[in-house]
Amino acid sequence: MLVSGKPFRTIWLKPGDETVVQIIDQVKLPWRFEIIDLRTVDDVAVAIRDMWVRGAGLIGATAGYGMYVAALEAEKTADFRQSIETSGRILVETRPTAVNLAWAVNRQLTALRACASAKEAVAVAKQMALTIADEDAASCRSIGEHGVKLIAEIAGRKNGGPVNVLTHCNAGWLAFVDHGSATSPVYAAHDSGIPVHVWVDETRPRNQGARLTAWELAQHGVPHTVIADNTGGHLMQHGLVDFVITGADRVTRCGDVANKIGTYLKALAARDNGVPFYVALPSSTLDWTLRDGVKEIPIEQRNADEVTHMEGTDELGAIVNARIIPAASPAANYGFDVTPARLVTGLITERGVCAATEGGLSALYPDRA
Amino acid sequence: MLVSGKPFRTIWLKPGDETVVQIIDQVKLPWRFEIIDLRTVDDVAVAIRDMWVRGAGLIGATAGYGMYVAALEAEKTADFRQSIETSGRILVETRPTAVNLAWAVNRQLTALRACASAKEAVAVAKQMALTIADEDAASCRSIGEHGVKLIAEIAGRKNGGPVNVLTHCNAGWLAFVDHGSATSPVYAAHDSGIPVHVWVDETRPRNQGARLTAWELAQHGVPHTVIADNTGGHLMQHGLVDFVITGADRVTRCGDVANKIGTYLKALAARDNGVPFYVALPSSTLDWTLRDGVKEIPIEQRNADEVTHMEGTDELGAIVNARIIPAASPAANYGFDVTPARLVTGLITERGVCAATEGGLSALYPDRA
Repeated sequence: MLVSGKPFRTIWLKPGDETVVQIIDQVKLPWRFEIIDLRTVDDVAVAIRDMWVRGAGLIGATAGYGMYVAALEAEKTADFRQSIETSGRILVETRPTAVNLAWAVNRQLTALRACASAKEAVAVAKQMALTIADEDAASCRSIGEHGVKLIAEIAGRKNGGPVNVLTHCNAGWLAFVDHGSATSPVYAAHDSGIPVHVWVDETRPRNQGARLTAWELAQHGVPHTVIADNTGGHLMQHGLVDFVITGADRVTRCGDVANKIGTYLKALAARDNGVPFYVALPSSTLDWTLRDGVKEIPIEQRNADEVTHMEGTDELGAIVNARIIPAASPAANYGFDVTPARLVTGLITERGVCAATEGGLSALYPDRA
Repeated sequence: MLVSGKPFRTIWLKPGDETVVQIIDQVKLPWRFEIIDLRTVDDVAVAIRDMWVRGAGLIGATAGYGMYVAALEAEKTADFRQSIETSGRILVETRPTAVNLAWAVNRQLTALRACASAKEAVAVAKQMALTIADEDAASCRSIGEHGVKLIAEIAGRKNGGPVNVLTHCNAGWLAFVDHGSATSPVYAAHDSGIPVHVWVDETRPRNQGARLTAWELAQHGVPHTVIADNTGGHLMQHGLVDFVITGADRVTRCGDVANKIGTYLKALAARDNGVPFYVALPSSTLDWTLRDGVKEIPIEQRNADEVTHMEGTDELGAIVNARIIPAASPAANYGFDVTPARLVTGLITERGVCAATEGGLSALYPDRA
């Protein structure tokens, strides 16, 4: 997607020195756009642990590139196999609950264990890192191609004016290698000339909507408006939302959707007002072992600091972290909620759109169900 | 209610000099607790216009006291009648849409026009100001007495543990003269030994929950936890909310409730999870001229700065106002939404609890319906 008019992915090899991995420091967005060089496994581990990169797809891709850096480091050691295994463990431990992280590291390890030499391992790891990233981008692009049809259909029914899309959190290209999941149909619509306007939930407490989704939509030139999370119900009551689309952190085999806290409230409002509510996801987000999301998906409680404090910039542009709650009051920070499948109009995956039901998912993924 | 262990109202005559009105500067809460002397009609007008006082009940009471200050000023002029009329106009114009403001000024003017002398006017205005304030406090106390029965009933059904109440925005004693509307049953429960715990929605974008409700609950010693507005649905899904109670800005004769943006989303979640959703209001909030709240109640769009910026304190305790959204992204700020009566379990008024229907309200207020 575009940043200041120039196409970017979220991770890539440095032009002119392909032993260096480059990323955007997402912790500093939207206040600063800074590209960071990752030259060692430790650099990569810090980038993942400190959330310079975030989002399932991008974490997986970063781990893939991290194992390529690991192979480069291993080449300089006496025992390249041991070095690669150690690096794999270091990377996996940076965010133990990130499924895509372990998946990418293991995919690399399986390939690297078959290599006869350190030199071969470097070549294999580089190719695999590029493949993992390309697959992620392609999967997101497919989600866009399937989802844009739904937006085009609404555009066809409307008498002019943009299709008003509401989204929650950041399931944008910043969370993947490119395109994003929830944003991919929006970018596809915008790029193909369908007029779209996006209501961006600010997404308290971490403000990924206000900080990341708003930033990436602005950079790509997609019309949008940031709103407080409280606003969506009112907008839907007054016909100002045509289509709700969010990403997902985990989707059960029956179609229950765990996503950023507050998603469930928007799904309820969409249902109450007859607004279609879609969830976009690459199939790696499907958890075939679970059925009942509300009962079975554990919800992470995060640091209360995210509720009690907020980061922004002061009048001079300096980054400030302000306390926004009285010191005497405790706060709680539940990271996610579960939207029951009954409230989800459909799931948009890289293989197509299906009902949020076991039958719908099984028909699309007979090889995995 | 208590502040640092000492009982307070939100407005009162200064002990030792009853020509001076005192208020709490609510703009500075929760960062500073400052009592302000209002000595002139201009002082009172600034206090209302700049929202040092806010909330329907408190604005009305402040206007009542303002007319007492107006009578004191009029005593020093050649034509006390003209002076009082001018002051009345000044006060009414401070917040033209505040119904209670015009109501209190007119109630004073009607009484003052009947006075034979400036001296009599001062005595009448003082008594009327106290009456308006006492009536507001008494009305809120009655709401508490009716509402606490609902909380006691839930406490009786629970096997120990506090009754978990969720509230949105600030319908607390700070918005009235004392007790509050939504908070009154909570304070009544707490003061009578029923264990309660309040989930406080921070209430973006102005954060009245995090700033005011959390502050007043902490000062009065009521256990509470501040949460992002996105959180309530998840809590209700997991049985962590027993009772939702909010205030109201306007309620139609059929029971539709206009209240702070986001109230509707909580009502939807309460309905989806079988949690009782009550609205507490003094009957001055009833608008008997309206039926369909979603269609008929105009929703104020406020300054986008409230969404793009947030006030807090830095590490040294200095007040900072941080930009929390990229400069390139526009924002919208809808102040209120309407919760349809079908989602409201009941209305708690100073005359008792009734169904959120025309029949329920008419039975309680046959003299007004």
